[in-house]
Amino acid sequence: MTKHRVVVVGGGFGGLNATRAMAKAEVDVTIVDRTNHHLFQPLLYQVAAGILPEGLIAPALRSVIKRQKNARAVLAEVRELDVDARVVRARQPDGQDLELPYDTLVVAAGATHSYFGKDELAEFAPGMKTVQDARYLRDAILSKFEMAELTTDPVERAEWLTFVVVGAGPTGVELVGQVAELAHQVLPRDYRSVDTTDARIILLEGAGAVLPPFDPKLQRYTRSQLEKMGVEVRLNTLAVGMDHASITVRSGDSTETIRARTRIWAAGVAASPLAGQLAEKTGAATDRAGRVEVNPDCTLPGHPEIFAIGDMVSLNKLPGVAQPAMQEGTYVGRLILARLAGRGPMMPPFKYFDKGNMATIGHKRAVAEAFGRKVTGLPAYAMWGFIHVLYLIGWGNRLGTMYTWARAMYFSKSRAHRVITFEQGVSAGTARPAPVMRRPEPAPATTPARPT
Amino acid sequence: MTKHRVVVVGGGFGGLNATRAMAKAEVDVTIVDRTNHHLFQPLLYQVAAGILPEGLIAPALRSVIKRQKNARAVLAEVRELDVDARVVRARQPDGQDLELPYDTLVVAAGATHSYFGKDELAEFAPGMKTVQDARYLRDAILSKFEMAELTTDPVERAEWLTFVVVGAGPTGVELVGQVAELAHQVLPRDYRSVDTTDARIILLEGAGAVLPPFDPKLQRYTRSQLEKMGVEVRLNTLAVGMDHASITVRSGDSTETIRARTRIWAAGVAASPLAGQLAEKTGAATDRAGRVEVNPDCTLPGHPEIFAIGDMVSLNKLPGVAQPAMQEGTYVGRLILARLAGRGPMMPPFKYFDKGNMATIGHKRAVAEAFGRKVTGLPAYAMWGFIHVLYLIGWGNRLGTMYTWARAMYFSKSRAHRVITFEQGVSAGTARPAPVMRRPEPAPATTPARPT
Repeated sequence: MTKHRVVVVGGGFGGLNATRAMAKAEVDVTIVDRTNHHLFQPLLYQVAAGILPEGLIAPALRSVIKRQKNARAVLAEVRELDVDARVVRARQPDGQDLELPYDTLVVAAGATHSYFGKDELAEFAPGMKTVQDARYLRDAILSKFEMAELTTDPVERAEWLTFVVVGAGPTGVELVGQVAELAHQVLPRDYRSVDTTDARIILLEGAGAVLPPFDPKLQRYTRSQLEKMGVEVRLNTLAVGMDHASITVRSGDSTETIRARTRIWAAGVAASPLAGQLAEKTGAATDRAGRVEVNPDCTLPGHPEIFAIGDMVSLNKLPGVAQPAMQEGTYVGRLILARLAGRGPMMPPFKYFDKGNMATIGHKRAVAEAFGRKVTGLPAYAMWGFIHVLYLIGWGNRLGTMYTWARAMYFSKSRAHRVITFEQGVSAGTARPAPVMRRPEPAPATTPARPT
Repeated sequence: MTKHRVVVVGGGFGGLNATRAMAKAEVDVTIVDRTNHHLFQPLLYQVAAGILPEGLIAPALRSVIKRQKNARAVLAEVRELDVDARVVRARQPDGQDLELPYDTLVVAAGATHSYFGKDELAEFAPGMKTVQDARYLRDAILSKFEMAELTTDPVERAEWLTFVVVGAGPTGVELVGQVAELAHQVLPRDYRSVDTTDARIILLEGAGAVLPPFDPKLQRYTRSQLEKMGVEVRLNTLAVGMDHASITVRSGDSTETIRARTRIWAAGVAASPLAGQLAEKTGAATDRAGRVEVNPDCTLPGHPEIFAIGDMVSLNKLPGVAQPAMQEGTYVGRLILARLAGRGPMMPPFKYFDKGNMATIGHKRAVAEAFGRKVTGLPAYAMWGFIHVLYLIGWGNRLGTMYTWARAMYFSKSRAHRVITFEQGVSAGTARPAPVMRRPEPAPATTPARPT
């Protein structure tokens, strides 16, 4: 008799936790992912900032599950979920097609950054979702200081030294804080002609506060800390146009064009296209961000054998962060086992346990809220570090990360991983030129863009 | 009065040591390099093998010299050495031209891999000289195991699992040893369908022994250790043709085509094109590898203000490894200072102090010869590790490397840095496709290539 076949699409927090929850069961689990690694997304900004090497936060997926003998990992990009034939169709790296039949399907395909329909902005304002994105951003940020050192024209130099981060959610705050630390703490002694502390670092946010989902007290703290670090925080401000050398912003009735060679997109996310595919095939609804609405037990309407979890689903208004994806993954894994044991109907619907929110701003600066308590400063920073190290996979990566942090933050105020290779990146299907290669163009395009 | 201006072309071992030797002098030193990092080349194969993250062996050049106030680093690619006008012309990353006038010029532009005039082989057999090359090789090697896991056809699987390293110098031996360790030690437990120990790993060498410059006893030891590790060593064998799925080799009168999806080029090096430019402009001779012949004090004929050092020069038949470049750099820096103090004529010509040779084969296996003594096995391995860590730049990188080695080799037999991103690499001006994307083509091309 063949075992019950579970196909898990996506090796992120959701898919990996679902797989692990089935570790001791009589099932055959196949995780299919288009990359070979499980990415610990919450620390990806530290790769972009030159603090961590990518390997510590992106262990090979098959290495992560190597002791789980009932699971295997497959490197392929899922193209079609055939819910009638119960087959997942994927494309291998060499272009060949692969069919994965399933008895139960778990779709945990995550989200990508969204330019609100204006994908051409990817060229002007890269986002950060993959290892390649982070390498590209690292190249893009660090190379601007190199260019500023080379030029003798003060106007051009100011352009190279202006950085605009669009979107003040946790990722935007973390990235802008890192750019500020680079310019003010890490790089000044490395440069001879340019004073890197002259850098102008701007954080744009369409809403009226930074870190919109957080408590107002923590929002105020974050804003004031960012300002102390040299960041210009602009609230109620939208990006309405961009080109290679500038960004046009609108606040109320006034419009301003800022000469800036670096824009970073941290404004919006959209569900994986597989969410739309699931919705279409099962009749489920999708929300504005393209997320598919699932039943309280994470199944799709009329398809109890299909689960969808994580950033690509809309369920109880949960935020698109790691915790809901992880908990949904574990829940779904357990529900599959309960069903196989004939106890499926006894399982209650998924219930989220809110462990709180946190975001780091910079060295010894962070905010956290959990169980009704609000924490700021060093205690929040220590908590943030402790929890993130704890959730990393493998003691080797945990120790390596602690060593690298100690080195980067406490001993030498340095960034060890500063290799620039002028990567030609590809993200969300959009080919990108190398970060600094282009000369400025005369007039800004007027492509409207709307940050959150 | 303006200070004496020294321009150093290249931030490798030669250029960096020349710069450091002038640390306390009344000179203005400018190091110009087309990358932003000083690359510790002897450990680059460990990046290709997934052991080390690139940052630990490629610190930012300007960070390395940040305490040396008389030196600055410039990120640009040198195009022309104008020896009459005493100006170095370089291109900035944004395409603008940059002129660097000098009173003294030190050219330490290194070498690249050579396909003996058949640059089209770069597509079929990538080499390893840069960080991007190493990332590309890591992608190329690791992705082949992924492909082998995906295929069900035994012939195709064997093709994915066949690795051919061309050239048995230290780099070739180190790389082939790493492929063998991956296949036999690191990866077996990670895969479900494929047995990675089925991999066929071949080392080709045109000469009659591996590690040609080493003592015959060490050559025999290296060969027998490689064979114990599962490497097929083929001596007196030339690569005479390649395509995307095979390599044709000739040994004596017999020719054989081996189906193999991975070929790695470690066969030849050629001096930087700047060596040819210097030769042309100063009337100096070049050797077969394009290296320029310099005077015993490393100057060019008729140009006492121009020095050339390292892998791009031919001097006393010194090998193209780190030690001669470092010692020449230090010598040249001191000679410049002696001249400024009016003691130039008192300086003797450059004299190489031979500290010996070493190469690592695999875990606890290495060979070393120094001061007439020959060492093999664990003692040579320990020596190799100690010396390489010692020569790394910065205690942060030394400790980080030791931690990573301990983790990779002693505790878990793992490779922490296994991210595959299917990099599109560019090396020696040749654009390369992503490592595994292509399907095999019907017949092998008959491009002849000659390993050393």
